[in-house]
Amino acid sequence: MTDETGAQLTKAQQIAAELRAAIERGDYGPGDRLPGENALATQHGVADLTARRAMKILRTEGLIETKKGAVARVISFQPIRRRGIQRLARNQWGSGKTVWSADDHRAPDVDQIKVLESTAAPQHISDVFELAPGETVCVRSRRYVMEGRPVMIAESYLPQLLVAGSPIVQADTGPGGIYARLADLGHAPAHFREEIRVRMPSAEEAARLAIPADRTVIKVARTAFDAEGRAVEINEMTLDSTAYVLDYEFDA
Amino acid sequence: MTDETGAQLTKAQQIAAELRAAIERGDYGPGDRLPGENALATQHGVADLTARRAMKILRTEGLIETKKGAVARVISFQPIRRRGIQRLARNQWGSGKTVWSADDHRAPDVDQIKVLESTAAPQHISDVFELAPGETVCVRSRRYVMEGRPVMIAESYLPQLLVAGSPIVQADTGPGGIYARLADLGHAPAHFREEIRVRMPSAEEAARLAIPADRTVIKVARTAFDAEGRAVEINEMTLDSTAYVLDYEFDA
Repeated sequence: MTDETGAQLTKAQQIAAELRAAIERGDYGPGDRLPGENALATQHGVADLTARRAMKILRTEGLIETKKGAVARVISFQPIRRRGIQRLARNQWGSGKTVWSADDHRAPDVDQIKVLESTAAPQHISDVFELAPGETVCVRSRRYVMEGRPVMIAESYLPQLLVAGSPIVQADTGPGGIYARLADLGHAPAHFREEIRVRMPSAEEAARLAIPADRTVIKVARTAFDAEGRAVEINEMTLDSTAYVLDYEFDA
Repeated sequence: MTDETGAQLTKAQQIAAELRAAIERGDYGPGDRLPGENALATQHGVADLTARRAMKILRTEGLIETKKGAVARVISFQPIRRRGIQRLARNQWGSGKTVWSADDHRAPDVDQIKVLESTAAPQHISDVFELAPGETVCVRSRRYVMEGRPVMIAESYLPQLLVAGSPIVQADTGPGGIYARLADLGHAPAHFREEIRVRMPSAEEAARLAIPADRTVIKVARTAFDAEGRAVEINEMTLDSTAYVLDYEFDA
């Protein structure tokens, strides 16, 4: 069978599949040490390189992590359950909470905060905001780190004329964040659209998320609309695809 | 830099990145033929194997496809925009429409339909349905094919006692599908939860979707609840991650 059908596994993929099954069965629990590459190679009668490739597959999948040299352990990180709709409810940011408090009991650290008060907008952003020629945007970029592990990078775009002089152009936007401040400005978000894609990361994204270059990321592009239907924010998020469960709950 | 940070690209990854950029710029449009592996190897002064690896990366990402021998072309498939909330609205299935008519103007073919009227439930399904010991489920499995390309496989579980003797245990469930029939039975879905994860496919999933073994899939697990809050269906879907944009639109 050809590679395109995906039916034929390489030796490394077979070894990875065996280890994956052992992890899923619980033979190796969170934090447990896996056999070394040499031991694995001997056990399966393959070259060290093949054993190394098998471990690389599991690392890419986010099942194991390798710290300090060659010791590989089963990952102990619990995926973040991101409650897509509840976290953006008005009573969430309207009461000064962060959107993260709807997700689980852990709160992330935010670092790599960079605010550009006024800069040229990428074409697709300018199109959604229907900016006049020469009109600029405010860009807020930051990284979210959970339990020492980078899990998401995000870039929010807002029309500069809308947010000029407000706390939105400061590093700290205050309780309830951007959405509470947009409400202060008379443009409370009333409606959201989230578009989800799965992609390979750029080299920069992989470096900032500290993930292998061949681990996919989830791209979430959120557009926030005010009560008049005007797009007031676009947030382009890049998530480590192994760190999240996205949860959407809604009525029929 | 170590592999774990993702910052250092192999030669094959660099060549793939160049071709990716060329495709994104439009230098190669949908359906266009890409340079052959030999030409690519000569051009970059690398071994044929390295050029082959670069092409493999782009195939895994769903940017190119290789049919009949070695000719690689830019993919011309337009991703399906799956409107997560609108497609499950009561006025959708309640009017006899399929959930797909909310997505875009294309309709998929359904094949590999298999219905098990009564079978033992996996533990996690039994837990959600709160089945009594020995109680069984009806399982409907099928594959969705868009423009000749398999894009999703799905397995729906329903409590057997709920659906016994209804069209739900037939291959063709009639206009509006499972949800319209659950409504006929007095258990119309009133609330949905969708949980989204990104995973590597199993060998069987890769084969049924005809995707490379190292292309991630999107797992969507949907639970449908009736007005009393009872779980009446669980649909475990496996999507080719390069074939979809998932779209959720909702109010604040």
